[in-house]
Amino acid sequence: MLSEFDLIARYFNRPRHTGGVVHLGIGDDCALITPPVNESLAISTDMLVEGRHFLPGADPESLGHKALAVNLSDLAAMGARPLGFSLALALPQADEAWLASFARGLFALADQEQIELIGGDTTRGPLNMCITVFGSVPTHHALRRDGARVDDDIWISGSLGDARLGLEIVTRHLALSETDTAIALERLHRPTPRGSLGLALRGIANAAIDISDGLIGDLGHILQRSMLGATLEADLLPIGRALQSQDPQTQLEFALNGGDDYELCFCAPPAKRDRVIMAAKQAGVVVTRLGQIVPTPGLRVLDSAGHPVKLHSSSFDHFSKP
Amino acid sequence: MLSEFDLIARYFNRPRHTGGVVHLGIGDDCALITPPVNESLAISTDMLVEGRHFLPGADPESLGHKALAVNLSDLAAMGARPLGFSLALALPQADEAWLASFARGLFALADQEQIELIGGDTTRGPLNMCITVFGSVPTHHALRRDGARVDDDIWISGSLGDARLGLEIVTRHLALSETDTAIALERLHRPTPRGSLGLALRGIANAAIDISDGLIGDLGHILQRSMLGATLEADLLPIGRALQSQDPQTQLEFALNGGDDYELCFCAPPAKRDRVIMAAKQAGVVVTRLGQIVPTPGLRVLDSAGHPVKLHSSSFDHFSKP
Repeated sequence: MLSEFDLIARYFNRPRHTGGVVHLGIGDDCALITPPVNESLAISTDMLVEGRHFLPGADPESLGHKALAVNLSDLAAMGARPLGFSLALALPQADEAWLASFARGLFALADQEQIELIGGDTTRGPLNMCITVFGSVPTHHALRRDGARVDDDIWISGSLGDARLGLEIVTRHLALSETDTAIALERLHRPTPRGSLGLALRGIANAAIDISDGLIGDLGHILQRSMLGATLEADLLPIGRALQSQDPQTQLEFALNGGDDYELCFCAPPAKRDRVIMAAKQAGVVVTRLGQIVPTPGLRVLDSAGHPVKLHSSSFDHFSKP
Repeated sequence: MLSEFDLIARYFNRPRHTGGVVHLGIGDDCALITPPVNESLAISTDMLVEGRHFLPGADPESLGHKALAVNLSDLAAMGARPLGFSLALALPQADEAWLASFARGLFALADQEQIELIGGDTTRGPLNMCITVFGSVPTHHALRRDGARVDDDIWISGSLGDARLGLEIVTRHLALSETDTAIALERLHRPTPRGSLGLALRGIANAAIDISDGLIGDLGHILQRSMLGATLEADLLPIGRALQSQDPQTQLEFALNGGDDYELCFCAPPAKRDRVIMAAKQAGVVVTRLGQIVPTPGLRVLDSAGHPVKLHSSSFDHFSKP
């Protein structure tokens, strides 16, 4: 007898794509994937939990989008081409309306990226979505975190801080104009993974990471893994359109420590500036040069007079201690 | 500033194995794995949720073992060689003693299988463990569910039903002898994935599945996918050692519908009986021939007189309706 959760699992059983790398998907003990010759499989897992990553009652269509988008963002930061994903889903009850909406958001993005759901697990339990995503990348052209070099330019895609502003709207009922509210909530709930940019940066960028926890913290991972430091110019930060409505200090805080931006931060040699700009144009994304990699460990953010900027957030200082 | 959950994640950061297929593990946006030339990557995901798959207060060391074992069992059923796994873990609080014990159980099995944790995610939330496991298998030698053929023998490894008996002990305080209690609980909490057998059956078995939901249901998946039926002889069922203490009807029910056995059920041509027995000997596992694949859809279990056996469980009849 099929349980209601077996039936739910069937909800996710869709026609196969004809990509050729996925030999066997849902319905066997394992899925089988073969990466192209001379390429590695890039793998990332993210778990989204109710009450931690989203509020109870969050729109399931946006959750479906976001659960996949944050994983695709990890592939983008690696310069990997998406191939497929698995989904493990715990649900308090078999709510068909919720599932229909969740699946709509999930598969709209999957179809756009031409990737398929290759397997997974569905069970009763407190709401929890765990997606594992698979991509391929030529083994020695992956955009790792540990490849930054002294004098590399530090670049960021898109803009920063609007998702953090969206969180203020949701959790603290911050009132903004209708337009700014829409922009900020869209950035929070429906992040855009920068996959095309990641692919275009293969062979150009020395290191890359996606901004999930905030620029300071995530650039800090590149610096730690590369055993180097960085200097950023605060005036160069691409402040999100909605965030521009706030005071300068809030702009700075949210752009540097906001999180949930899912932009790519990457390092490339100054000699490749033209190629970076061409790659960004090709990917249809704006990129901004923020600063330089330096030999001294630690991360310094300077104002227009060249003085270190002061930030309220204590997290700012953390990475300046090697 | 590292959160307590970042620190927990570091708990899982261990020395690298030198297998050569994992190029990049924990600490970057993605892990990178390259399967051997001409092999595919086999991938499976299982999510274990407190209150659903185990009781609150369950021994964390056993949970660590079981969370990985049930995933390795899926690789075994595919004939795939384990390479690595990712772990996404939601925990109500950062409990160091719990984590130390969980990690001990997890890594004892991982070390035994010589596989490494390649990445994952750690977050606060209701207890939930989601493991995704990666193995490699020659693409056209994978033991799929859809490969059974008419007249194939149906085999089962090890014994059946003791894990189900263990569940009675845990949930209904069933009293057994000390030895039988120990056996049944060991089977429930610390299943042994049949990896060596799965590898040895490449090129011999036409189809395979692991028994997680019970023989009837799981063999049913092979029959559905292969569009065939089967006849089993009840007297041939390898009843678990502890389960032999129970009445014949309970033995039959638990062996056929118990679940959590994590034995391999596989189909192979009668001409390959000697090779099956050699493969089992090589893998150090007992195998038992239970019946045959037949062209008529449905699953029939016969007693020693050749009459269909009656079972209390309603799930029994399900797969006899094509």
